[in-house]
Amino acid sequence: MENEPLLMLPGPVPIPERVRAAMTRQAINHRGAEFGAVYQECVDLLRPMFGTKNDLFVLSGSGTAAMEAAVANFCAGTTMACLVNGKFGDRLSEIGKRYGQVREIASAWGTPLDLEQLEEALEEGAGVVTMVHNETSAGMKNPAPEVGALARKHGALFVMDGITSIAGDLVEADRWGVDVALVGSQKCLAAPAGLSAISVSAPAWEQIADRRPFYLDLEAYRKSGAKSPMQTPYTPAVPLFLALREACRIIAEEGLDARIERHRRMSRAVRAAAGAWGIELFPVIDAVHAYSSTVTALKIPEGIGDADFRGAVKSLGVEIAGGQDHLKGKIFRIGTMGAVGAPEILAALGAVQHALARLGVPVEGDGVEAAAGVLG
Amino acid sequence: MENEPLLMLPGPVPIPERVRAAMTRQAINHRGAEFGAVYQECVDLLRPMFGTKNDLFVLSGSGTAAMEAAVANFCAGTTMACLVNGKFGDRLSEIGKRYGQVREIASAWGTPLDLEQLEEALEEGAGVVTMVHNETSAGMKNPAPEVGALARKHGALFVMDGITSIAGDLVEADRWGVDVALVGSQKCLAAPAGLSAISVSAPAWEQIADRRPFYLDLEAYRKSGAKSPMQTPYTPAVPLFLALREACRIIAEEGLDARIERHRRMSRAVRAAAGAWGIELFPVIDAVHAYSSTVTALKIPEGIGDADFRGAVKSLGVEIAGGQDHLKGKIFRIGTMGAVGAPEILAALGAVQHALARLGVPVEGDGVEAAAGVLG
Repeated sequence: MENEPLLMLPGPVPIPERVRAAMTRQAINHRGAEFGAVYQECVDLLRPMFGTKNDLFVLSGSGTAAMEAAVANFCAGTTMACLVNGKFGDRLSEIGKRYGQVREIASAWGTPLDLEQLEEALEEGAGVVTMVHNETSAGMKNPAPEVGALARKHGALFVMDGITSIAGDLVEADRWGVDVALVGSQKCLAAPAGLSAISVSAPAWEQIADRRPFYLDLEAYRKSGAKSPMQTPYTPAVPLFLALREACRIIAEEGLDARIERHRRMSRAVRAAAGAWGIELFPVIDAVHAYSSTVTALKIPEGIGDADFRGAVKSLGVEIAGGQDHLKGKIFRIGTMGAVGAPEILAALGAVQHALARLGVPVEGDGVEAAAGVLG
Repeated sequence: MENEPLLMLPGPVPIPERVRAAMTRQAINHRGAEFGAVYQECVDLLRPMFGTKNDLFVLSGSGTAAMEAAVANFCAGTTMACLVNGKFGDRLSEIGKRYGQVREIASAWGTPLDLEQLEEALEEGAGVVTMVHNETSAGMKNPAPEVGALARKHGALFVMDGITSIAGDLVEADRWGVDVALVGSQKCLAAPAGLSAISVSAPAWEQIADRRPFYLDLEAYRKSGAKSPMQTPYTPAVPLFLALREACRIIAEEGLDARIERHRRMSRAVRAAAGAWGIELFPVIDAVHAYSSTVTALKIPEGIGDADFRGAVKSLGVEIAGGQDHLKGKIFRIGTMGAVGAPEILAALGAVQHALARLGVPVEGDGVEAAAGVLG
């Protein structure tokens, strides 16, 4: 659209018109049947995206609120083994420190998690493992099934941040042994920012903390969720629920398998472009770690500045992301999340390719053509 | 509108079309200049409604989130004197108990607060006073200037829940000595549910807790708020900010004084109807307490059931509220909040008057006519 930048970020992502239009509904009483049906439909449609049959709640707060809800409700009474190889793993660990004992198992951002150290921590009695499934800060997918198996073997809870994987990549919370899983609305769901959802297993409920925060008290969510019509304990962000329902309906129409395959193909296309250009991908992967299929992190070529580079891309109407914290100026990231497809990928890669040329970066080949080959 | 119930509740309230339309904006990067300008304009327009020049933040969470933010950030290290004469005073006290020491000063719901007991608590060292300015559960306005003066006299912080008064009734936080004030979006602001705002005085900042929650950490809000462009620490509920800005613009266009006078007139009209019918108002007021100008609580006449009564009102397309908790079946409440005016008040009172007649309740006179006389 004229004058609208195309957001190719790891969230927020472009929101389909149907989803935005859903928010214009006049105010409804959130204790009534209409809102209850909206909430229930969101839950029913989200469960398969989580791969869970567990309790599931939608929180009126961002993904960070869901991270805190997970930690504050289920992790406070034990040692948390927090796996960290990026910004959001680090955030879970930071939140953990506000509530209890954290044993951080840190690798450099974008490098594999240390599962041997994790096993050691579990042997020494850590009661919870936290992990970010898709670490957007590094463009990396962490090994959820393997970590889930370790947690299960040692009887520990597994809290998995699926904020940027659920609804875009395969997540099988129940099969992998994930006790608490999270998603954010403005990522692969392609809904507006402001909501998150959290699933809770029976073993997690058994370990719920006695002293819980108030707004994020999941016991209160459980009680209100069991009412008929279904309710939230406090006033929900009603327009965002209406938008989320519409976003979930669109996902159901596409089909989850097709959506996951589309995300994988889009990220393969970006990686193919990087390969054609001769630009290195940032993450270091191994047999159990993988490149993210919802965001690709690439190294910024030598000799060009982040602001110049992304500015040149933006002058063509495309917003891509830079690196966060110590990766600022070192990497750039292209989101392949939500409702976007081949046109958006080609536009983004075309803009990047032009920016590289404008800044005098020699590239080996035609990245746009390489991506088109994957997408077509 | 056809098939749309008219919500005459103490929130949520009907949302003007301009406000709803503002949410259809395509996703924007919430770290960019456009969002920063939206947030800044919200803050600038909200400050006069709070009657404050203090720091002010918009939280992506309901009024309850703002209540918890107030308590968790500023009240944890001392004894809180919690004034309670209704459901929301009680909620502040409940939240207080999760974070620290509470000295509850409770009166029966809808009866005056005990300011002598408050003074005693302050003399004995309570460091914070919490009070709900407009207690919707009882249709009662509590004496903010008097409580503020007492808090100030004893050097205590004053946390005032203005969730249902700010933007509808006069609030002068700075003049009254309010250190932390709160508002909810779906009340007098006539914006959608899901946001709240909180103001923080310099003395409050001096007492900020060392150990704070994460999502509601106001120190993080302060840091991000000081950036240029203005930011929130975590992902904000962007469409709700766009809606809130539009709602604030509408309020600025009406003018705050005119808006306050309109709310007062609307509530006088409802009280005039009650007087004409011979139906008793619920709250017990004295020289410093007053009837709420944003919601009126009336006793349900003897011999009729709450469900039958409100069902009959609803059959005419109007939703009014019942009583909460132990007041269920004892009172009914009519909201006069936000963007409504004479037509909505007359519609609501006409529906109530008809429901009374249908259920065989003898009324003394014509309440609709009495209200029209006040509104005209």
